Amino acid sequence: MGTDTGLEGVVAASTRLSHVDGERGELIIVGYSLAELAAHATFEETTWLLWHGRLPASFELDAFRAELAEKRALSETTLSLLRDCARAKLDAMDALRMAAGTISLTADDAVTIAAAIPTIVATFWRYRDGLEPIAPRPDLSHAANYLYMLTGREPAAERTRGLETYLNTVIDHGLNASTFTCRVITSTGSDLVSAIVGAIGALKGPLHGGAPGPALEMVFEIGDASRAEPILRRKIESGERLMGFGHRVYKVRDPRADVLATAAERLFTRGGDMALYRLARDVEGVALRLLEEYKPGRRLQTNVEFYTALLLHGLGLDVPLFTPTFAIGRVSGWIGHALEQRAANRLIRPSSAYVGPRDLRWTPLTSRVR
Amino acid sequence: MGTDTGLEGVVAASTRLSHVDGERGELIIVGYSLAELAAHATFEETTWLLWHGRLPASFELDAFRAELAEKRALSETTLSLLRDCARAKLDAMDALRMAAGTISLTADDAVTIAAAIPTIVATFWRYRDGLEPIAPRPDLSHAANYLYMLTGREPAAERTRGLETYLNTVIDHGLNASTFTCRVITSTGSDLVSAIVGAIGALKGPLHGGAPGPALEMVFEIGDASRAEPILRRKIESGERLMGFGHRVYKVRDPRADVLATAAERLFTRGGDMALYRLARDVEGVALRLLEEYKPGRRLQTNVEFYTALLLHGLGLDVPLFTPTFAIGRVSGWIGHALEQRAANRLIRPSSAYVGPRDLRWTPLTSRVR
Repeated sequence: MGTDTGLEGVVAASTRLSHVDGERGELIIVGYSLAELAAHATFEETTWLLWHGRLPASFELDAFRAELAEKRALSETTLSLLRDCARAKLDAMDALRMAAGTISLTADDAVTIAAAIPTIVATFWRYRDGLEPIAPRPDLSHAANYLYMLTGREPAAERTRGLETYLNTVIDHGLNASTFTCRVITSTGSDLVSAIVGAIGALKGPLHGGAPGPALEMVFEIGDASRAEPILRRKIESGERLMGFGHRVYKVRDPRADVLATAAERLFTRGGDMALYRLARDVEGVALRLLEEYKPGRRLQTNVEFYTALLLHGLGLDVPLFTPTFAIGRVSGWIGHALEQRAANRLIRPSSAYVGPRDLRWTPLTSRVR
Repeated sequence: MGTDTGLEGVVAASTRLSHVDGERGELIIVGYSLAELAAHATFEETTWLLWHGRLPASFELDAFRAELAEKRALSETTLSLLRDCARAKLDAMDALRMAAGTISLTADDAVTIAAAIPTIVATFWRYRDGLEPIAPRPDLSHAANYLYMLTGREPAAERTRGLETYLNTVIDHGLNASTFTCRVITSTGSDLVSAIVGAIGALKGPLHGGAPGPALEMVFEIGDASRAEPILRRKIESGERLMGFGHRVYKVRDPRADVLATAAERLFTRGGDMALYRLARDVEGVALRLLEEYKPGRRLQTNVEFYTALLLHGLGLDVPLFTPTFAIGRVSGWIGHALEQRAANRLIRPSSAYVGPRDLRWTPLTSRVR
C-alpha cells in the first residue's frame, strides 16, 4: 500500500478561512493571526468572521448573538436519545454524533447546529451523572452558557474567557480530517447536518481529536517536578511516545500552544491550582529538552493537546469532555468550510489504485476450497 | 477557486476491492467482473468477498448468512427515533442516517451494521405509511427479507433475484464520495458506525446517490414511445440535462447499466409491466441518438440511474426508497473499505491553498463599518 500517503501535501481545496503554515508556526483565521483574535475576539465574533469573511458590525453581532442564544434548546427526541445514550454509558463523542444527527428533525441551518452542539454535550454529561439537564440561558454568551449548562452555576468572567480563548483557538485549522470530511460530504450536495455529523465522527478518532487526555495524565503521573526527568527518560528510552508533543503539520512550535499556555496561566493565576500549572510547565521544559537530546533535529514541540488539557482541566471539565468541547469550537469552522464548499462546489471524488486480482472466474460454492 | 478540481485523478488510496475503468467501461469487484458476479453471486457472497478478499467456502457462507440474519432486529431507541422521523415526515435518507447512528447503542461490528440497514429502511417506510413494522425473518436471504419487511409478503424468487442483482451491482465502485468519506473518517481511528453514518450523509447528496428518481419520471412524462423524440428534443434544445445519461467516470457505457438492463428485462418478463419496460428502452434509444446528434463526440451513455429506476420501480419500490436501497447494497463496500483502511492506515489529511486576506489588525467593535 505504498501509494497511500494520506494525501499529504495534496491541495484538495482553496479556502479563505484559515491558513496553517507549519514551517513558520503560523495560524491565520480569515486574515487575522490567532494571537490577534485570541486577544480580542468573542467566540461569536470569530464564528461570524468565518461564516461571513469579515468581522460583524455591532448590530450584526447583536442579531447573531440573539439568534444563537434563541436556538439552544433541544427537541424531545434529542433529549430522549441522550437519556438512552447516558443509560448505555456511551462515549460522549458517540452521544454527540447521534444527537447532532437528530437536529434534522427541527432544522438544518448553521445557527441551529452551532447553538445545539453545546446543549447536547452539557445535557448528555448531566444525564450521564444522573442529573437533570439545565436549560440554556439566552442572556449568557455561547461560552458562558456552556459552562452554566454543565454546572448550573454562572461562571466567573475569567472562566468564560478561558473557555472562549480555547474555542477560538481550535475554531479552524485548514483541511484537517474532520473539516475535509465535512467538505467531501457537502460536495455531494448533501445537507449541513449530514456534513457536521460526518465531521464529528472523524473528530472522534484518536489520530485526530479523540485522544486529548493522555497529555494531562502524564503530568498527573509525574506528580512532582523532580520526578519529570527520570520518568520521561524512561518513557522515551522504552519507545513510548510523549503525549502532547509533536504535530504532523507544525515543524516548529504550534502557535495555538502559546495562546493556550497564556490562557491557562491567566486562568490558574486568577483562581486555579497554580502548583499544577507550574508542574505542567516544568514537565514541558524537561520533555522538550529530552526530546532534543534523544531525537536531535526532529524539532518535536509542544502541541495543542498539552495546553488544551491543562486549560480545560482548569475549567473543571472532565477528560471525556475534552473532545466534545473541541467540537463545540470546531463546528464553526466546519460550517464555514461547508458554506465555502457550497459556494464554489465541485464533487470531491479522488481515484484509487487497484492492487487486487484480475480476471477471476466464478467458482461454484461446492467447488470452493478453504 | 480554480485549484479546486475535486481531486479528480488524484490517487487517494490503493485498494483490492474494486476497480473502475472508465475508458474501457469495466468494473471489477475483487478480481471478478461485475457481469460474472451478477450472473452467479448472492448478496451475502459478494459481501463476504469484499470483506475477506475471496469467495466463502460453504460452511463460511452458512455461518455468515446465519449471523447476518440474527442481527437484523433494531433496539427500542432506534425504533422510537424512526417513529419520530416518520412523524416529522423526514426524508428516508435523513431517517436512515440518524437511525444508523444509533446502532452504536448496541454494537459497532460490520455484520450488525450491514444487517440493520435494511431493517431501518423498511421500518421507517412502514411507519411513514402509518403501518406497524414487520419483524425480520431469519430464514430469508438478505434481499428477500428486505422486500418481505417492506410488504409483509414473501417475495417471488425473481423479485428477490432482481433486488439481489441490483445490490450486487452497486455494492462497490472505487473511491466514490461516500466510500472516500468512509475511509477519511476511518483514517482518524474512529469507529465503523461513525464511518458508515458519514458515508450515508454523503450518499444522500444529489450529486452522488441522492437523485435517482428523475430518470424514471422522464419516462413516465413521455408516456408513449411516439412522444419520445419531440419531448427529448425540446429538453435538449432548452439546455435541460437528460437524467440517466452521462457519468463523470465512465466515458463509454456504464457496465452496471447492462447488468441492470438484463435484470430489469428478466423481472418485467416474468411478471411486470412489459409496456413500461419497452417504453423505457425506446426512450433510451432515442435519447442516445439525440445526444449524439446534439453533442457529437461527448459519448454520453446510459448510466446506472436509468435502469436502477426501472428495476426498482418493477420491484414495487417507491422513488424515495431508491437511495436508501442503494445504501443497503453499498454498505458492504463501505465496510470493506473501512476494514482495508484500518489494516494499512495512514491519516488522510490533504492540504488547502489559502486564498484569503493576510496581516489584518483587529478593529474594535465600535469602529467597524458595515
